[in-house]
Amino acid sequence: MKCAILSIGSELMEGRIADTNAAWLSERLTELGFEVARHIAVGDRRADILTALRDLEKVASVTIVTGGLGPTPDDPTREVFAQFSGCALLERPEAVRSIRELFARRGIVPPDSNFVQALIPEGADYLHNPTGTAPGFALNHGGCRFFTLPGVPSEMKVMFNESVGPALRALSDRVILVRSLHTLGMSEALIGELLAEMMAEGHSPAVATQASEGMITVRITADEATEATAREKLAATEREIRAKLGEVVYAADGLTLGWAVAELLEKRALTLAVAESCTGGEIAARLTDVPGISRFFLEGAVTYSNASKTARLGVPADLIQRHGAVSAETAEAMAAGMRRSFGADVALSATGIAGPAGGSKEKPVGLVYIGIADASGTRSERVMAFGTREQIKVRAAKRALNILRLHLEKMG
Amino acid sequence: MKCAILSIGSELMEGRIADTNAAWLSERLTELGFEVARHIAVGDRRADILTALRDLEKVASVTIVTGGLGPTPDDPTREVFAQFSGCALLERPEAVRSIRELFARRGIVPPDSNFVQALIPEGADYLHNPTGTAPGFALNHGGCRFFTLPGVPSEMKVMFNESVGPALRALSDRVILVRSLHTLGMSEALIGELLAEMMAEGHSPAVATQASEGMITVRITADEATEATAREKLAATEREIRAKLGEVVYAADGLTLGWAVAELLEKRALTLAVAESCTGGEIAARLTDVPGISRFFLEGAVTYSNASKTARLGVPADLIQRHGAVSAETAEAMAAGMRRSFGADVALSATGIAGPAGGSKEKPVGLVYIGIADASGTRSERVMAFGTREQIKVRAAKRALNILRLHLEKMG
Repeated sequence: MKCAILSIGSELMEGRIADTNAAWLSERLTELGFEVARHIAVGDRRADILTALRDLEKVASVTIVTGGLGPTPDDPTREVFAQFSGCALLERPEAVRSIRELFARRGIVPPDSNFVQALIPEGADYLHNPTGTAPGFALNHGGCRFFTLPGVPSEMKVMFNESVGPALRALSDRVILVRSLHTLGMSEALIGELLAEMMAEGHSPAVATQASEGMITVRITADEATEATAREKLAATEREIRAKLGEVVYAADGLTLGWAVAELLEKRALTLAVAESCTGGEIAARLTDVPGISRFFLEGAVTYSNASKTARLGVPADLIQRHGAVSAETAEAMAAGMRRSFGADVALSATGIAGPAGGSKEKPVGLVYIGIADASGTRSERVMAFGTREQIKVRAAKRALNILRLHLEKMG
Repeated sequence: MKCAILSIGSELMEGRIADTNAAWLSERLTELGFEVARHIAVGDRRADILTALRDLEKVASVTIVTGGLGPTPDDPTREVFAQFSGCALLERPEAVRSIRELFARRGIVPPDSNFVQALIPEGADYLHNPTGTAPGFALNHGGCRFFTLPGVPSEMKVMFNESVGPALRALSDRVILVRSLHTLGMSEALIGELLAEMMAEGHSPAVATQASEGMITVRITADEATEATAREKLAATEREIRAKLGEVVYAADGLTLGWAVAELLEKRALTLAVAESCTGGEIAARLTDVPGISRFFLEGAVTYSNASKTARLGVPADLIQRHGAVSAETAEAMAAGMRRSFGADVALSATGIAGPAGGSKEKPVGLVYIGIADASGTRSERVMAFGTREQIKVRAAKRALNILRLHLEKMG
């Protein structure tokens, strides 16, 4: 069943906030088996809201509306709905009671202006707001059911969970499940070629790719009549994709590269130390985002100057002189020195040119050497990262963590 | 002049990401003097995109479209625009060259499928993408000018700034200039009281506050007929605000706290070293985002384990035993040890509890001690950071950098 979301608020039009309500509602609606066909966001102007409602009733069977239900004159949603539905606004006794009770709990008398919030289009269903003064309402118009909720995220979420969700569950006849596989090390185009058959329109489950900051996510969406069938189809397609993409898949759903590395360190019972130059702390920062990482991650060193590489990691000054700070030799010496100096089982290093200055023809901005040292010896890889200084740092950190991940996987 | 934003991507419809592109673009468009009338977001289905384009050309003179320009079959934007404009897709030589060059820099041959991204509707203007393989394009249809950009935020932003912004500036008849002053260390309510007069509705230039991740930004917006007047009014209001807020203003516009610290280090001719525990590399990562920081920032240590604090920084094991790893004493010993061990002029340290586990009644999650050591001695401050593990890390890193900034300012 198709649904849509309408978000009302000038703060969205001025870009002062991102529309996180639409994202949250979309996730809930997708879980409930609805297909979200469209989001619209408009400001506080009545004509814009009315046009949006008319556009949406043509494309959706269910529309969730948020925002514009406050007590001040710039909150137009109630009046626009009265005009849209051709019904007068009536004061609802349940709403008046609820507003009084809310203020009584805070020990104050509500200002008269608050009771404008108790007005609801005649014939609409009242939706109780347990944590705020703006009640919601639901009404049918032109083949679409509209659920209208306040825009304050915490109030909206409670009301969706308590009133709207249960009503929608009764309407939906599908179960939609989604699985995301995160990859690093293969281009989106090549993944598209390998998965072309599965990605064709009409394939069930649907398979799509999405790029973000150097990684590609492959998303599988199963849309079935029962949960069992949806799970089964999802799992079968996931197996097929993993067989085709192999080790470039590093994690699934909400999990990160740091988490994948932490899991492998735990599995292999290894400790880790990290020596960073060009990534400037990004590798350590990513690893320490993982709760409980302190069991495996002993320490990091941001050896930004050459002197620091020599003093901290014992990289010989003449080795840096001979090969340069950005070289396979220095990366390997950094990793070996970091491992030795603190007794970690594995050490990871990164040295490169984050830019914008400092590049040359032989060693351009974005060139990064990643080193790994463990009981079996040292090795290094040369990678190129692209973008702004910040992007190069982040992308190089991801590449380094991915190289470590692949190394740890092969040790198994 | 009215404008609109269309975001294309199934990930938006399934709620896997919030539409931050629309928010960012809205802010830019507002600054440029445009009125953003509507956002629409749709999935990858061609019919839905086409309907949205037709709806938008009725309400806007300018529409920015993002997403769906990838190289895989589920990227429909090019084809939909061909249908919408009634023009065939033609391969653009500039785009082919740009894709080849981008891959050449990475030392690989692009797969054939990548060249589908070089297709652009006949007659459309080519928009160069300096950091990715998807070029954008601009075309007129039905009284609206459409600018189409890739959905990857970093690529979209560079292209907007380089191509779209300048084109739009030429269309607008007002000069809107915005100045943002970033503050740390004063509540939004208190800033609101101090600036009440300037923040009143109707005040010109307009002054507003916005909170994000522990910092408050004061935004001044001048909307004038000429650039000279706008600049003058902006400067006068900035002076007035700085006089009222004093040292809590740490930077302006796109500049960061790391940049403010770097500038002070340069001014005072001092070198810096950083020892981090709970922030896990976030302080170093922020500092190393600043180009040229290598002249002042010698090295960082992520001494995550207690043993590492002792081995690297010479923090006595019995001091940690007595006061705990999260204490003023340990923070100061970390800073002093870091400074001593490498001969930096100033050392900054942070030790705390990032959570979610590890907190207690006396030392709750979010408690962080910041230490500073310099030639005049050592000192520490106790701060509380709130939120998730990631938020606590980032907020504690900002607080640490701000404490260092204020310390460096007082040295003058």
